[in-house]
Amino acid sequence: MRRRDKEVTDRAALEEVLVQAEWGTLGLVTPEGRPLMVPLNFVYDQGRLCFHSSPAGEKMATLKANGEASFLVVDSYAVIPSYAFDPAQACSASQFYKSVLAYGRVTMVEDLERKVEVLERLMKRLQPEGGYQPITAAGPMYQAGVKGIAVLEMTVDRLSGKFGLGQNLNPETRTAVVRFLQLRGNPGDARTLAAMAGAAALPRAGSR
Amino acid sequence: MRRRDKEVTDRAALEEVLVQAEWGTLGLVTPEGRPLMVPLNFVYDQGRLCFHSSPAGEKMATLKANGEASFLVVDSYAVIPSYAFDPAQACSASQFYKSVLAYGRVTMVEDLERKVEVLERLMKRLQPEGGYQPITAAGPMYQAGVKGIAVLEMTVDRLSGKFGLGQNLNPETRTAVVRFLQLRGNPGDARTLAAMAGAAALPRAGSR
Repeated sequence: MRRRDKEVTDRAALEEVLVQAEWGTLGLVTPEGRPLMVPLNFVYDQGRLCFHSSPAGEKMATLKANGEASFLVVDSYAVIPSYAFDPAQACSASQFYKSVLAYGRVTMVEDLERKVEVLERLMKRLQPEGGYQPITAAGPMYQAGVKGIAVLEMTVDRLSGKFGLGQNLNPETRTAVVRFLQLRGNPGDARTLAAMAGAAALPRAGSR
Repeated sequence: MRRRDKEVTDRAALEEVLVQAEWGTLGLVTPEGRPLMVPLNFVYDQGRLCFHSSPAGEKMATLKANGEASFLVVDSYAVIPSYAFDPAQACSASQFYKSVLAYGRVTMVEDLERKVEVLERLMKRLQPEGGYQPITAAGPMYQAGVKGIAVLEMTVDRLSGKFGLGQNLNPETRTAVVRFLQLRGNPGDARTLAAMAGAAALPRAGSR
């Protein structure tokens, strides 16, 4: 329930979240003015978010009418119970997280070679162990598939992020949370501790 | 890359996703017409999605201008590599998932007793083991906090869902995926197999 400055401006830290995530959420605005959200596997490639899609459906119809989009990636961490902070008061209970929001315009990739490149990157992200014939624009195995599938790119105009990882707690409270997680040792607590250490080492938003 | 009918209309199956999730994404439309997305812990309570928020910030400013919202909950499962389907072709690689999208209007809860009820439910969801003094509208511990925090409710007008859990694959392909996951035995594969069995038992969209 407490307000804390959780904003993260370090571009490398935000991009790391985009590179490591398996999926994110594409946000669009429908012609009726409603927010449509679609979870997608994706790859982040030098300022561009890339995905593929069936060429039909609500997402594509919405995109054709309005390419202004956002893309949210969330990495969720341990729930920190209130008693890690205070023996009586409930207000401090929270789930730790990293959240990165990108804004930009989504365009369709029409060039077959670029489509193949994006599809290969998506495969490498999802299936790094290989075990398939490389995708090519020509040849009987992939020709129809590459032509038929929609490949989408979003050029990121604005990237913002919030990390709720205790980095802005006062040192005593932060130490209490670290000790609590070290003692509890739930699955995911070691990963949360590592993320807390990383977040604490980041430059504070607004400072240099 | 293949299109399959993944729509799920069984309300109980969709509500189960909402009840079991730790967090979801609130989608809004900013005054500039852009999609804003915010990850939030939440509870689902008989057709209403409930969350709390700091009363300041972009989310609240956007909500005050336009309460029309959506809420997305995703439960992600195992990545199924293409070679579970086909020894050569990459196209079938996919991540299994459940995705539930709710549309509705978000309103601020002003009644103190209802605020306390929602905050208690949020605490029970995040911290079922207890370990805090029950929240009350009166008394020195919570009075200022309950007044100061924003409690939000979204009445769900429309609920839709997609499950990508192989339920619409042909029986031979589905059996191949099941055998693949049984043999692989990665963390999460047993959970994926259980979800596949549940999804296969659902009524198909459009049928009765």
